[in-house]
Amino acid sequence: MELLSSTKSFGGWLKRYKHESLSVKSEMTFAIYLPPQAETQKVPVLYWLSGLTCNDENFTQKAGAFRKAAELGLAIVCPDTSPRGTDYPHEHESYDFGSAAGFYLNATVEPYANTYHMYDYVVQELPHLVEANFPVTDKRSISGHSMGGHGALICALKNPGKYQSVSAFAPIANPTDCPWGEKAFTGYLGEDKATWKEWDATCLVENLVESQVEKASERLPLFIDQGEADNFLTEQLKPEALEAACEKAGHPITLRRQPGYDHSYFFIASFIDEHLAFHSNALG
Amino acid sequence: MELLSSTKSFGGWLKRYKHESLSVKSEMTFAIYLPPQAETQKVPVLYWLSGLTCNDENFTQKAGAFRKAAELGLAIVCPDTSPRGTDYPHEHESYDFGSAAGFYLNATVEPYANTYHMYDYVVQELPHLVEANFPVTDKRSISGHSMGGHGALICALKNPGKYQSVSAFAPIANPTDCPWGEKAFTGYLGEDKATWKEWDATCLVENLVESQVEKASERLPLFIDQGEADNFLTEQLKPEALEAACEKAGHPITLRRQPGYDHSYFFIASFIDEHLAFHSNALG
Repeated sequence: MELLSSTKSFGGWLKRYKHESLSVKSEMTFAIYLPPQAETQKVPVLYWLSGLTCNDENFTQKAGAFRKAAELGLAIVCPDTSPRGTDYPHEHESYDFGSAAGFYLNATVEPYANTYHMYDYVVQELPHLVEANFPVTDKRSISGHSMGGHGALICALKNPGKYQSVSAFAPIANPTDCPWGEKAFTGYLGEDKATWKEWDATCLVENLVESQVEKASERLPLFIDQGEADNFLTEQLKPEALEAACEKAGHPITLRRQPGYDHSYFFIASFIDEHLAFHSNALG
Repeated sequence: MELLSSTKSFGGWLKRYKHESLSVKSEMTFAIYLPPQAETQKVPVLYWLSGLTCNDENFTQKAGAFRKAAELGLAIVCPDTSPRGTDYPHEHESYDFGSAAGFYLNATVEPYANTYHMYDYVVQELPHLVEANFPVTDKRSISGHSMGGHGALICALKNPGKYQSVSAFAPIANPTDCPWGEKAFTGYLGEDKATWKEWDATCLVENLVESQVEKASERLPLFIDQGEADNFLTEQLKPEALEAACEKAGHPITLRRQPGYDHSYFFIASFIDEHLAFHSNALG
């Protein structure tokens, strides 16, 4: 790991690092906010997954989260949103596919199958790296926005016991049934839609009913904020599909519809303190 | 005025407008945050002046100020940092002169003398526009960062009674004696350094001693935060010169040196709540 910058904020430190990732076979940058408490004790970690077009900096600069994180003694880790450094055909042409649009899955279609393994990176490699190198506990929570909200939900749903809590802002809640998801999943996973379902929060919840393998105690409640003035709400995000699946499966969900709020970081900033308190409470 | 966008944040609204400015003879964009209280009553206004390279968006996106502003019932107005729309020789070549570097003065050197009247814009035209069009009182405070900290200090010092309070983050405190100021003042005001002094906070405080015209009651205390790890501290900012002038003149100043903090918005965000509380208290 190479330290890129270290910036004091609310008595703690925001540090940016780059490192060679094994999962995605490229150099990756991530940010970690270490609250003041981390100078004398290990602190739990919230992983934040950002949305389309973002990198590790959007959340750190715009969410206004460090005041509360410093108060709660919570570290926050912000990975990038795709592998970098490759130059596949069409990889950099659109905002919703390829670079900065990794969708937190493991691609199976060449050439993306070579490196677009953001799921492995976020769920396995990054926590391993963070827990080996920083004063943090092995207690983790996960949250994110839009594409990153989708990422947070699937990471939690696919890994019972891995996270203490999960939340999302305006997640792409049913990507197998919206233009963003259909484009990305076709490009990363191919035409067989059966293979898409394991990367879709709504489908994952639906499958809970079928498999019945999970104990109720392992079912993390889904805590979601959604702005009602979000331009992407109807066509792309579809939280009502996830809500319906949860009701059918008996999976706990709190979906708060926030009147007047849009898809921006001004929306996230307005409610991030509540999400941080929710996670801190679960992290103990 | 033309509304460019309206975004809900912390129960209030961030609105961006453009308008034809008489002072600077160009189309100007500004932002105003109206807290929830503004829906039912008039609220006081804090003017925020940004630094080099900025526009109206840096503060609104990065300072994390709206949570506290919504709590306090404080509107915040963020102007741009220079006139726009002209194309003078060298106007867009460097980050520290010309566009986005108006230095909150009235230029006297052609061609800048035609339009670079950011002092008139900030002190006269913008408050007039704001108070005529929004649910705000005529109680004003002013703050800013770096070049904008310089701007806030000179606007307050030159206009006793106009503002209820003034503060600054890492201001260019003695621009007549630093490279940024020397370059800008030469370009905007010419070679005669005697004309520079009325645009320099330290010189303005020094002149208080000579003139003795101000009543002590009109002397606003200067509240300044300065990061000790700020790369620009020694060469460009020189708060010690302002502090010395204040001590000599008996002008009240609180200069807080904050260990470990740099020149970034992470520094501003860490202390903005205290500045907002300071201004809100003065605004009553």
